[in-house]
Amino acid sequence: MQLSYDEIKLFVEKPFAFIERMGLLALELKPGFVKLGAPLKGNENHIGSMYAGALFTLAEMPAGALYLTTFDVSRYYPIVKEMNILFRRPARTDITAELSMPAAQALDIQREVDQQGKADFTLEIELQDTAGTVVAEGCGVYQLRPMEELS
Amino acid sequence: MQLSYDEIKLFVEKPFAFIERMGLLALELKPGFVKLGAPLKGNENHIGSMYAGALFTLAEMPAGALYLTTFDVSRYYPIVKEMNILFRRPARTDITAELSMPAAQALDIQREVDQQGKADFTLEIELQDTAGTVVAEGCGVYQLRPMEELS
Repeated sequence: MQLSYDEIKLFVEKPFAFIERMGLLALELKPGFVKLGAPLKGNENHIGSMYAGALFTLAEMPAGALYLTTFDVSRYYPIVKEMNILFRRPARTDITAELSMPAAQALDIQREVDQQGKADFTLEIELQDTAGTVVAEGCGVYQLRPMEELS
Repeated sequence: MQLSYDEIKLFVEKPFAFIERMGLLALELKPGFVKLGAPLKGNENHIGSMYAGALFTLAEMPAGALYLTTFDVSRYYPIVKEMNILFRRPARTDITAELSMPAAQALDIQREVDQQGKADFTLEIELQDTAGTVVAEGCGVYQLRPMEELS
């Protein structure tokens, strides 16, 4: 089963109130590649750069967007197990984050779920400002699970 | 210089829009000890438990609250350098997080800033649901810096 572009965009930008309040943007969504953005406006900390919690969210959500564009959403769902985030420089502009995964890797992960009942995988992500400077680096551990567990 | 309880409470609960939107609560604020809370309502993910970004924020903000109650805010300020967060169980209720630091440790950190120009320190934190179950564990690396850098 594949979702439409409009369905995926809605699930990424307005899946629930926390994300919608932050103004998260799905800038590019295609199989194997996603690019998300977060506006500085409304997400500033007390010194005017983007708050760490907003950066964390922008580092975490692309995995969900990549799942929606790249995995079989009728058969599997992901959870986040762990995230490490390194704050390298103040984020003084709107920020973007890209994530990609070769189709073969997604198939391997899904095959592992079929065989083992679950599959852990790691995603590394960089957050960049509008000048291309890396402001934060994330490393997330996710687990893909079979959808039948939920039913 | 010490801030009043009401000033600290305001800085913790409404320091900027991102935190205020989440409804973060300062439940206890005293020198060497803080307890913060986050309501499930308004911070749910698509399956009704608390979203990872809200849990991250609840894991990160107590360090700022502890700074306000425990450090000399007229001479030093903290930044967050890195945070690792482990999501152990779904957070299905309001969630709380406590952080403590002996006065002697805070004095040691401030002394190191005076001598070295900055001081890194690590804070470990557990997030608990209303039954006392640990739903997430955070480990943050913070840096204390001299206030004169900002002026």
